[in-house]
Amino acid sequence: MGTITLTTDFGLSDWFVGTIKGVIAKISPRARVLDITHGIAQGDIRAGAIALSAAYRFFPRNTIHVAVVDPGVGSSRAAIAVRTKDFYFVGPDNGVLSLALAQEKVGSIHRLEKKKFLLPARSRTFHGRDIFAPVAAHLNEGVPLKSIGPRTVEYERLLLPSPSKHGQQVHGEIIYIDAFGNAMTNITTKHLGNRGSPKGRVNLVSAKQFCPLVEFYEAVPRGRLLALINSAGLLEIAVNGGNAARLFRLAIGQKVSVKLG
Amino acid sequence: MGTITLTTDFGLSDWFVGTIKGVIAKISPRARVLDITHGIAQGDIRAGAIALSAAYRFFPRNTIHVAVVDPGVGSSRAAIAVRTKDFYFVGPDNGVLSLALAQEKVGSIHRLEKKKFLLPARSRTFHGRDIFAPVAAHLNEGVPLKSIGPRTVEYERLLLPSPSKHGQQVHGEIIYIDAFGNAMTNITTKHLGNRGSPKGRVNLVSAKQFCPLVEFYEAVPRGRLLALINSAGLLEIAVNGGNAARLFRLAIGQKVSVKLG
Amino acid sequence: MGTITLTTDFGLSDWFVGTIKGVIAKISPRARVLDITHGIAQGDIRAGAIALSAAYRFFPRNTIHVAVVDPGVGSSRAAIAVRTKDFYFVGPDNGVLSLALAQEKVGSIHRLEKKKFLLPARSRTFHGRDIFAPVAAHLNEGVPLKSIGPRTVEYERLLLPSPSKHGQQVHGEIIYIDAFGNAMTNITTKHLGNRGSPKGRVNLVSAKQFCPLVEFYEAVPRGRLLALINSAGLLEIAVNGGNAARLFRLAIGQKVSVKLG
Repeated sequence: MGTITLTTDFGLSDWFVGTIKGVIAKISPRARVLDITHGIAQGDIRAGAIALSAAYRFFPRNTIHVAVVDPGVGSSRAAIAVRTKDFYFVGPDNGVLSLALAQEKVGSIHRLEKKKFLLPARSRTFHGRDIFAPVAAHLNEGVPLKSIGPRTVEYERLLLPSPSKHGQQVHGEIIYIDAFGNAMTNITTKHLGNRGSPKGRVNLVSAKQFCPLVEFYEAVPRGRLLALINSAGLLEIAVNGGNAARLFRLAIGQKVSVKLG
Repeated sequence: MGTITLTTDFGLSDWFVGTIKGVIAKISPRARVLDITHGIAQGDIRAGAIALSAAYRFFPRNTIHVAVVDPGVGSSRAAIAVRTKDFYFVGPDNGVLSLALAQEKVGSIHRLEKKKFLLPARSRTFHGRDIFAPVAAHLNEGVPLKSIGPRTVEYERLLLPSPSKHGQQVHGEIIYIDAFGNAMTNITTKHLGNRGSPKGRVNLVSAKQFCPLVEFYEAVPRGRLLALINSAGLLEIAVNGGNAARLFRLAIGQKVSVKLG
Repeated sequence: MGTITLTTDFGLSDWFVGTIKGVIAKISPRARVLDITHGIAQGDIRAGAIALSAAYRFFPRNTIHVAVVDPGVGSSRAAIAVRTKDFYFVGPDNGVLSLALAQEKVGSIHRLEKKKFLLPARSRTFHGRDIFAPVAAHLNEGVPLKSIGPRTVEYERLLLPSPSKHGQQVHGEIIYIDAFGNAMTNITTKHLGNRGSPKGRVNLVSAKQFCPLVEFYEAVPRGRLLALINSAGLLEIAVNGGNAARLFRLAIGQKVSVKLG
């Protein structure tokens, strides 16, 4: 039957996501369509890329991942589909696919230009419905990637800031804040020495706050700041039972450092 | 297997939509249920009608479209199911189906009154669960429309304001604002001469703003006002990379005029 | 094929719910996953328990209901799966399952401890993905409950406040407020004498408001306060066409009394 996922900034209050599912159902009636999220902040390509990169590997082999955070819809940016060892990725070539692709063995990349695999009447404002959905559905029906348009060799890559390490200190920054107000950083288990349960002290520089590196939320009293390695393998700042981002005015880009040991 | 869509104002924070899906799964285990949206403003029959009319035609033939924006639930308003050439429509007879029906060849209309196709215990506050969901599920299982209740000949029609045309000027108004803050008007490609890419100047009367009629969002600089024909074929006011409704205090009913050429 | 439901406080703006669906699809490709809601207020175990208890019985027999409102994730609270006469329930043993279980004939209860039915790499912050989803998927594939871990005999029970009755007066309180601003109380049809349409006068004590007990929203003029027995069988305070909670500053725990007759 095959699985298609959707990651967009369309929200759920209008008919946009529903329409995409209609288009897919019409072309590939047995496809299972699963939402990763439609709650990406509007036009926030980086947040879309982070969401996709955190979620994609939990889906069945050969899942077709469609990501549409596309402020340049209708302009000259390309639309691409990418084959990797285990998955397909479909979306605008603006970086939204790139953090996931960076973790995968990338095979061939094709531009979505063959008209027979797009909707016949195409708007210049809703390529999710008119281009990405029909291509994903046709791929799910077994259309080979090479039929959907010309091959290309590169894709647009987002550059996330890299953490730096100085002795037992790791310096990074906040890259994503979730609905719980938990702030994820670009510091990963790898930067913390790949130990199962690293110990240390975390400095939230802008908020002038320090907190312990622990293993789970309730390891500190209710209402207290903490840091832990979260389910995406990232160092995360949180408050047990509270909203860290709101309480400490956390924002994307703020500096965080860890002193191990 | 068959497809059933849902368009409601129930929101997603309570258990209402989930319960509807349970009722359908129990009666029609192989039905695929797709959400058009549950984010219609509460009790806003017109917004529900617009959403349904913009989305319904993208679904597979014979899809059963259920729309429940129903402030009069439990009162004497009728509940109906309508057969059109390509689809079924099920909902309260309060106009929520009417903008879609106006675009279709309408066949027979029946009232949902046969008790064996409703839930045995019916509330007077949740007909989505107790009446509309079970009827849609039974239709999907092949129950003929004429079995679900007495035939009727009319349905309640919403009147949307009509644009007027004076020479090269078209006068209309805002009828829907989406989650991006884009304001859709009642002016369609038809009023603009059915040309592929009409050109002109748009006047947002209440905001005393003028903007060009372009083809896609990035055709103007970031932050600038624009108008375009959107993916539903409607003239839409937007800001490239911004929220037009918030920036220019746009609201339903505000006047918009286009000077073509 | 089998049905799995999800009731969580994860919200829909991040990738968490999508990832859970990926995990399930990988283990049990033919499972149908239906959302009851992901909009439970964060960490509000009681609201999650109320939502599950209001919705679960509308799903097909043998549905596996997964509820994850889990502020203690990663701590020592147990994870359990419960067999009842008609359903399975899976979640943290913190009371979130208990209001539904209180309405069911409970069979055996097992702790989710057998590693082969969990994800191999388990975080201490996202048991929805790493523990509850895979166990639900394996149960759906036919793994017997007794294989997933040791049997236990008790489960954590939430205590909801009980209404009291004095002659023709019933005293209760608000226990849940929905997205429409309707306030549900702990007073049920049973407390009101199990009559089809009880009549009476309702006193919203804190707001110093009185309103009639009616049968549906439009039984009072638009904008007026009313009480009715809602679709979950609970006495509910509402405003016809308005948001009662906002208009009268209603909150969980506020006292409500009914004078019958």
